[in-house]
Amino acid sequence: MVNPLFIPGPTNIPERLRLAMARSAWDHRGPRFAQLIIPLRERLRSVFGSRQAEMAFFTGSGTAGWEVALTNVLSPGDQVLATRHGMFSQRWIDLARRLGLEVQVIDAPWGEGIPADRLAEVLRGDCQQRIRAVLAVHNETATGVTSDIAAVRRALDAASHAGLLMVDGVSSIASLPFRMDDWGVDIAVAGSQKGFMLPTGLAIVAVSPRARAAAADHTGPRGYLDLSAMLEALEAGSYPYTPAVGLLDALDESLAMLHEEGLEAVYARHAHIAAGVRAAVGAWGLELCARRPALASDTVTAIRVPEGFSADAVVQRAQTRYGMSFGIGLGQLADRVFRIGHLGQMSEAMALAGIATAEMALLDLGFPITAGSGVAAAQRQYRQTESIMPRRQAGGA
Amino acid sequence: MVNPLFIPGPTNIPERLRLAMARSAWDHRGPRFAQLIIPLRERLRSVFGSRQAEMAFFTGSGTAGWEVALTNVLSPGDQVLATRHGMFSQRWIDLARRLGLEVQVIDAPWGEGIPADRLAEVLRGDCQQRIRAVLAVHNETATGVTSDIAAVRRALDAASHAGLLMVDGVSSIASLPFRMDDWGVDIAVAGSQKGFMLPTGLAIVAVSPRARAAAADHTGPRGYLDLSAMLEALEAGSYPYTPAVGLLDALDESLAMLHEEGLEAVYARHAHIAAGVRAAVGAWGLELCARRPALASDTVTAIRVPEGFSADAVVQRAQTRYGMSFGIGLGQLADRVFRIGHLGQMSEAMALAGIATAEMALLDLGFPITAGSGVAAAQRQYRQTESIMPRRQAGGA
Amino acid sequence: MVNPLFIPGPTNIPERLRLAMARSAWDHRGPRFAQLIIPLRERLRSVFGSRQAEMAFFTGSGTAGWEVALTNVLSPGDQVLATRHGMFSQRWIDLARRLGLEVQVIDAPWGEGIPADRLAEVLRGDCQQRIRAVLAVHNETATGVTSDIAAVRRALDAASHAGLLMVDGVSSIASLPFRMDDWGVDIAVAGSQKGFMLPTGLAIVAVSPRARAAAADHTGPRGYLDLSAMLEALEAGSYPYTPAVGLLDALDESLAMLHEEGLEAVYARHAHIAAGVRAAVGAWGLELCARRPALASDTVTAIRVPEGFSADAVVQRAQTRYGMSFGIGLGQLADRVFRIGHLGQMSEAMALAGIATAEMALLDLGFPITAGSGVAAAQRQYRQTESIMPRRQAGGA
Amino acid sequence: MVNPLFIPGPTNIPERLRLAMARSAWDHRGPRFAQLIIPLRERLRSVFGSRQAEMAFFTGSGTAGWEVALTNVLSPGDQVLATRHGMFSQRWIDLARRLGLEVQVIDAPWGEGIPADRLAEVLRGDCQQRIRAVLAVHNETATGVTSDIAAVRRALDAASHAGLLMVDGVSSIASLPFRMDDWGVDIAVAGSQKGFMLPTGLAIVAVSPRARAAAADHTGPRGYLDLSAMLEALEAGSYPYTPAVGLLDALDESLAMLHEEGLEAVYARHAHIAAGVRAAVGAWGLELCARRPALASDTVTAIRVPEGFSADAVVQRAQTRYGMSFGIGLGQLADRVFRIGHLGQMSEAMALAGIATAEMALLDLGFPITAGSGVAAAQRQYRQTESIMPRRQAGGA
Repeated sequence: MVNPLFIPGPTNIPERLRLAMARSAWDHRGPRFAQLIIPLRERLRSVFGSRQAEMAFFTGSGTAGWEVALTNVLSPGDQVLATRHGMFSQRWIDLARRLGLEVQVIDAPWGEGIPADRLAEVLRGDCQQRIRAVLAVHNETATGVTSDIAAVRRALDAASHAGLLMVDGVSSIASLPFRMDDWGVDIAVAGSQKGFMLPTGLAIVAVSPRARAAAADHTGPRGYLDLSAMLEALEAGSYPYTPAVGLLDALDESLAMLHEEGLEAVYARHAHIAAGVRAAVGAWGLELCARRPALASDTVTAIRVPEGFSADAVVQRAQTRYGMSFGIGLGQLADRVFRIGHLGQMSEAMALAGIATAEMALLDLGFPITAGSGVAAAQRQYRQTESIMPRRQAGGA
Repeated sequence: MVNPLFIPGPTNIPERLRLAMARSAWDHRGPRFAQLIIPLRERLRSVFGSRQAEMAFFTGSGTAGWEVALTNVLSPGDQVLATRHGMFSQRWIDLARRLGLEVQVIDAPWGEGIPADRLAEVLRGDCQQRIRAVLAVHNETATGVTSDIAAVRRALDAASHAGLLMVDGVSSIASLPFRMDDWGVDIAVAGSQKGFMLPTGLAIVAVSPRARAAAADHTGPRGYLDLSAMLEALEAGSYPYTPAVGLLDALDESLAMLHEEGLEAVYARHAHIAAGVRAAVGAWGLELCARRPALASDTVTAIRVPEGFSADAVVQRAQTRYGMSFGIGLGQLADRVFRIGHLGQMSEAMALAGIATAEMALLDLGFPITAGSGVAAAQRQYRQTESIMPRRQAGGA
Repeated sequence: MVNPLFIPGPTNIPERLRLAMARSAWDHRGPRFAQLIIPLRERLRSVFGSRQAEMAFFTGSGTAGWEVALTNVLSPGDQVLATRHGMFSQRWIDLARRLGLEVQVIDAPWGEGIPADRLAEVLRGDCQQRIRAVLAVHNETATGVTSDIAAVRRALDAASHAGLLMVDGVSSIASLPFRMDDWGVDIAVAGSQKGFMLPTGLAIVAVSPRARAAAADHTGPRGYLDLSAMLEALEAGSYPYTPAVGLLDALDESLAMLHEEGLEAVYARHAHIAAGVRAAVGAWGLELCARRPALASDTVTAIRVPEGFSADAVVQRAQTRYGMSFGIGLGQLADRVFRIGHLGQMSEAMALAGIATAEMALLDLGFPITAGSGVAAAQRQYRQTESIMPRRQAGGA
Repeated sequence: MVNPLFIPGPTNIPERLRLAMARSAWDHRGPRFAQLIIPLRERLRSVFGSRQAEMAFFTGSGTAGWEVALTNVLSPGDQVLATRHGMFSQRWIDLARRLGLEVQVIDAPWGEGIPADRLAEVLRGDCQQRIRAVLAVHNETATGVTSDIAAVRRALDAASHAGLLMVDGVSSIASLPFRMDDWGVDIAVAGSQKGFMLPTGLAIVAVSPRARAAAADHTGPRGYLDLSAMLEALEAGSYPYTPAVGLLDALDESLAMLHEEGLEAVYARHAHIAAGVRAAVGAWGLELCARRPALASDTVTAIRVPEGFSADAVVQRAQTRYGMSFGIGLGQLADRVFRIGHLGQMSEAMALAGIATAEMALLDLGFPITAGSGVAAAQRQYRQTESIMPRRQAGGA
């Protein structure tokens, strides 16, 4: 497929990282492993906005990361509090329940962010502090909504609640500002295939000192996803089982790219690209799934289609006629929204290719939009800023 | 650079071919060389539209191919006839003169095609048949003009002239229909970095039986670019010096891609993509360098800028602000045209990215165009056709 | 590192598979996923020697595969029977215990195979059939011993025991003959990074109809490694979470390579290469860890060093002085054996490079061996056979 | 093919350079070209041992480089002096003659170096200084002989002769010490596919100020291989025709590798590896083609086979039975020698793989050698030195 991907992950893998994936295997028991892993863990911290978190890498997808959070400090029967406001928050809740946790769910409309006030209320009511953890999805990929994790922290603090704050940052970390320390996040979960621009295969889990202590005290059965064993091994420069050395090497390269561009520049670029996509949606006369501008995600835009239209048809048309992949709606948004992923390596020109193609698919299906209107709106947006280009434009990147 | 290239070559190299370039070296004196080269030469013929031409590959650029044509059947002092109607026809003439040939030049306005009637006139006047060869540039990359080679052949035939017909097909072959046999072409020159979608490095030269005989009879000094020595070696499954085995391997893969898509589908796709680009130019109110629609090339579009504007500034702006490369104007068209290359691997979405970006650069420079107008016009064009997607959409391509 | 790897996994990744890893990401929700996965599962069966097993791929290492076997049909407190005769059988036992299973262990000397007679005895004694599963490591990577799984099956059958037979085939499958159906294996676990010659990252689990039914009936908590959910998704051509599409693509390519060479030829090549390595060990006057020739593995050779010598020093010397990686001894064999991995892509010349380098390291450390003796012995072995070369020798492989 | 190459070029391409070849194309008319080429030319000088030479890169093989030397400062009819002592010196002479030069040839036995004394004699006799240039092959790849270029310079100086000194360094530069300034070399020719460890495709030509002035004054016809036009373009940060940007990028990476290892370390490694190969030949009881130890090349070893044996059969056997490529004998050495190339990326282990495989082929054909003897001799040689490993052992290299 010659076109860039506009699914909200896996993202487009930059050439530099694709080629890093083609390197030969090497001996993970030799000295090279520690030489790679020790600085890598250190350098990862800034991407999580932390000076103190311990970094763990599990060979697995983001779902494995969710399970790491749920099984290493919690035991079946433990109570957790979660908001359900999209398919991914729902899936994390489902996973928690399948793993035997007792999940108290606060439902919010899909398109809303985490209702911190309602969380606060519940937490205040939990006088015995039976809630062991709060699960928060930072960026709900299904609705294109970024929630305010600082507000969740304030809710906990306001209630003087000791519950651990577990955050799914899979589609935000390395693309959106993430302030683990400032927000008092205890466990943050990221995946290699989003902001890190890598293939799927690493669940990256950042652990606060408090969560680490909790994991050390934990007595439940753990095997492959044992966090304490992983952290101990990594600290010793080794790994508890055969590591995916190629992906770890490539993660190192990914960090180099992120740091070369500069994290703040990366965040600014995501905001800039996203603003253009949202301008296009506005010009089409369509609505975001995100209910308020402040909620709209800078990594993925979910777009509602009017009554009488099929969002799946848009995705299908773009795929089969124009060879371009967008995201479908999930769960209760199935066929009601389509999604444009714009995270990772994404330039203005790439975004415009996506917008122009979405436009053709919409027109083909009889949506009442004006050809070129979305592109023009995005162009206006993009032209307002003088350069969002990475400092190192050329090269194998 | 994350954006596709819109220079008229080298073109975007498809992933499948990029990865083919990463293969290990191998022994060109072993049996594998003949196993590669013999079927490769056979399969190349269809791309040149020939059943009988002999195929030669020189390690070099298209300029080396020009020189192969000029030095293997002609000697210093020989007379050749050429039309000058753009920078590449001019350069071939310059090369011929530097190599000691006596070139009779027919000038045509840059933006015109080869004036076959004037060629015919000169050929008719050459009663002693002193003109040994006619040089014709099939697709003038500098002006975006495709000339009618069949008409050149008719001019030769009408004059019963025995001059060899030498054609530069560098920016046409493998992208535009090329009918070597039907057009009575004696030597056709192509380069790896255009329609074959490969890196620069191979001059591919197709030779008619008549040209081959002429080369065999030729007595002038030849070394690296000795056509007869090359053909003899290739026919024996070997090579006269160390071959660029990686590029030859990748050329084999390129042919596989062209044949999988189907040559007629490749040509149709180029026409389709180009029509969209021209529609955009029209919507901008700008003019093609090509003086008539029938001349407009399906591989590269040269666009005139109005008086008072700088075409170089457009290219410069697109490059520095948006990270996208277009072609500048060359020779007498310097600063008067900019060029959009759209040959090789190019999808509608890619073309729209180029158009949308050119539009931003034009707007930034104060061109009186409407944002989104070019994109909208191209979209209309693209939506008229139900699918130009290659049959095999997926895969590493 | 320019030298091949001689660790018993990850193995040397063939160029063709390395380049497959460099391909762009694609949309796992589009039609391409089912087009890949459905035939891939079908074609995998032959590598497991099964016509009926269901194939599951988890993003994870072989340890994840062990856990899949242990957690999808068994519950904490369930009784399993296992033999401990090397570090990997020990680790699987440890994992089972950490997951809450009650493991009855039969210890055999490290260097012995699975003592089927003692298993039979225990199984016969288990009149109430409380043993729910037998864990068997087909190829004990730590000792270089291949056990007779057919004999384990016979032990179960002789006792008319209904326990499930779970086999770790991580370092055997795709390298050594594996007959899942003939041996009545219920769950077989493989990893991408051994015989499949890929990077670490996929746990490949084959499931018999009986095990599948047991998994369907199972009620324990499962999340990321839920086998039933995985199988249902795969059968529908989808995946329960974001799949590692690059590795799955590359697995498809790996299967193509295995089938092009021919599975029987692959097995014969491993036997042939291993015979040379063992001949070298004999010529050095050293002993295999494997106690009898019939036990010696064709994928990894563990070599005992005499009293007074350090095996770790050999590995260390080869690494630091000659840039070559061998495997160290593990557990009770630490410093007593070093291991030469010879699975996956391995030619005679590669094996000889390993043998010659080991020889230098041994000599450097004062081992009483004769320079060149191991190489000469391996050469004799290799020269006995007329060609073990894959049919397709050339190419990107 | 899984085995390393042992032909004397193209050499094994290191992974880092193979992956550099897989990068996307980029715009050679944009600013990036000058940013690449200007420092690249500067950094290349040290590899040629020069502080003042001008560097030119032609898209072509080493033969194109020979022709650059011959056609840019010489005209047909000009007299040149050359020694013929192997197939490559013969081919350069042939090329010179085909290009119309009058070549005075001093024949030396194949296996000898350049007879500087006889050159001196001829030069002294050339009172009118009609000899315009002396052609010298630094490392005769066909015989495995390295000649003393300093002695050739002394011969010129002793005769106070103003002839230009043109040196073929194709199989020496970047592998063997080359001192362009010290030796007073006027034109030195290298190729990308030898010491630079790249694919074939670049003829790298270094030009002394004197040769450059001669080229500027030269009036003969030149086209593709016009040195002055190339140098002028490169100095301006551009190129006279479409450059092979991928190879130039990769050459930059190659230089980085050479400088990371250190040129002196590179030379020492070549000498070390070659000493092992020669030790093996001695142990087999075979003779080098090089007539004296001082002449033996550190990049390629040519080995004579005894009467009654066929050297081609050795190469053929190694290829078809063991999948390993050695070089055949050329010209008058056809079937009399086989050659082991050991330049570029070559470790001790790789060299031992080649030696061990050659040994098997020799044994298979009934050569009276002792199995393992060559390997043992090379091991002894290699073990004498404490580490020739590049400083940066790990990584993608």
